Amino acid sequence: MTAAVILLSGGLDSTTTLAIAKSEGFTPYALSFRYGQRHAIELECAARLAATMGVAEHVIAEIDLRRFGGSALTADLAVPKGRDPGDPSQGIPITYVPARNTVFLAFALAWAEVLGANDLFIGVNALDYSGYPDCRPDYLAAFERMANLATAAAVEGRQRIRIHAPLMALTKAEIIVRGSQLGVDYGLTSSCYDPGPDARPCGGCDSCQLRAKGFAKAGLTDPLLARFAGADPR
Amino acid sequence: MTAAVILLSGGLDSTTTLAIAKSEGFTPYALSFRYGQRHAIELECAARLAATMGVAEHVIAEIDLRRFGGSALTADLAVPKGRDPGDPSQGIPITYVPARNTVFLAFALAWAEVLGANDLFIGVNALDYSGYPDCRPDYLAAFERMANLATAAAVEGRQRIRIHAPLMALTKAEIIVRGSQLGVDYGLTSSCYDPGPDARPCGGCDSCQLRAKGFAKAGLTDPLLARFAGADPR
Repeated sequence: MTAAVILLSGGLDSTTTLAIAKSEGFTPYALSFRYGQRHAIELECAARLAATMGVAEHVIAEIDLRRFGGSALTADLAVPKGRDPGDPSQGIPITYVPARNTVFLAFALAWAEVLGANDLFIGVNALDYSGYPDCRPDYLAAFERMANLATAAAVEGRQRIRIHAPLMALTKAEIIVRGSQLGVDYGLTSSCYDPGPDARPCGGCDSCQLRAKGFAKAGLTDPLLARFAGADPR
Repeated sequence: MTAAVILLSGGLDSTTTLAIAKSEGFTPYALSFRYGQRHAIELECAARLAATMGVAEHVIAEIDLRRFGGSALTADLAVPKGRDPGDPSQGIPITYVPARNTVFLAFALAWAEVLGANDLFIGVNALDYSGYPDCRPDYLAAFERMANLATAAAVEGRQRIRIHAPLMALTKAEIIVRGSQLGVDYGLTSSCYDPGPDARPCGGCDSCQLRAKGFAKAGLTDPLLARFAGADPR
C-alpha cells in the first residue's frame, strides 16, 4: 500500500476526494486544519469521516490564520448570501482566505516528506466553484513544481511529489454521483460557510447553493438536508 | 513607504535581511514562528530585534511542526556536533525541517496579501549553509512563480509577488560585514541549534561553526561570544 496525504475539510469535495484516493489503492493520511474558521462543525465532520472511512491517521493541525484576517471565514465579516457563484463578473468573494491552499499544501508537503509519501490529494474544483485562484490547474502545477525543489527527499531522489486533484474538471453533480458510487455518506459532511448552532446549513451562501444545485442535477436527495426537513427554518 | 514581509527567526541571517530591507526603503512587517523548535531563545531574540529595529508590526505565528517530526529541531533527536557544514558529501543533516521554508513563505504570502504587499524577504544563503534544498535560488524562483498564481490579489492584477533573498550569494563573512555597516547588533541575535539554558551557544553545531568562521574571516569579534567570554564553558 502506498501512503498519500489527503486534505480533508469535512466538506463534500474533500470527502469525495478521500474516497477516490482509497479506491485508487492509496493508504490515506488525512490532514485537517483548525485555522481560525468561524465554526468547528466541519472539523467534527472531518474527524467522524476519518474514523468511518478508515484512514491510517488523521491530523488536525492548529494554525491561526485569523492573525492575518482578510476573509469572511477568518475575520468578523458577514458571509455573503444569495450571490450567484456561477457568475465570474461578481469577482472573487470575501470568503476567499488569503493563500489558504498554499498554507494547507505546504503542511501536506511537510507531512508527506516525513511519511515518505509522494502523493497529495486536494479536492479543488474549477467548474462549480467561487473563482478562488488557488483552485485552478495552473496554480496546482506550479505548486507541484515548487514542491519537487523544496524537500530534501525530492532533491535526493527519494520523492517525486504529485498533486492529485481528481475533482478538478467535474461538475458538482458529477462529484456527487462519483462519491455516491463509492459509498460516501454525504450526511456526514458539512459544506455551509455559516451553519446554525445545530449544524443546519444556511442555504444562501455560495457553498450551500453549489451543493443544492449539484444534488438537484444529480437527481439525488441530500441526506444532510433530509435530516433537517420538517424542522423549523431558522 | 512600501510594506514588505520579512521572515525573522532571530538569527544572524534574517536580522541582516531585515536591516537590508529597511535600507532599501521598505516598511518591514516581521514574521516569526513558534513551530515546535527545541528552544525559544531565538523567538526572544526576534521580539527584541523587532522592537529595537523599528518594525511596523511583529507577528509570531503559532504552528506545530512537531506534529509531523522528522527533524532534530522538532523531534527528540540529538543535534549533530562537529560536522563539516562545508562538505556536501555529508548530505543534508537532520537539522533540516521538512518543508519548513515552504510553510514559512506560505504564511508570509498570506500576510502580504492582507497587507497589500508585493515583497517578501527571506535570509537564505546558498554559500555558507548546510545544504538545505529550500535555501536555493531555483526553489525560491519556483515559489515566486507559484505565489503569483495563488492569491486573489495577484490574479486580479493588484499584486506582483517578489521574493527577495539578498544574502543568497554572500559568504557568512560578507553577510556580517554588510550587517555591521548597517548597524546590526549581532549580540541580540541567536544562531545556535542547541544553546544552553543561559542562551550560551554550543559552539559545535553547523550553525555555530558557520557563524564563528564568518566572524573570523570578517576580522570581527562576535559580540554574542564576547558576552560569554570568561564564564565557564558548559
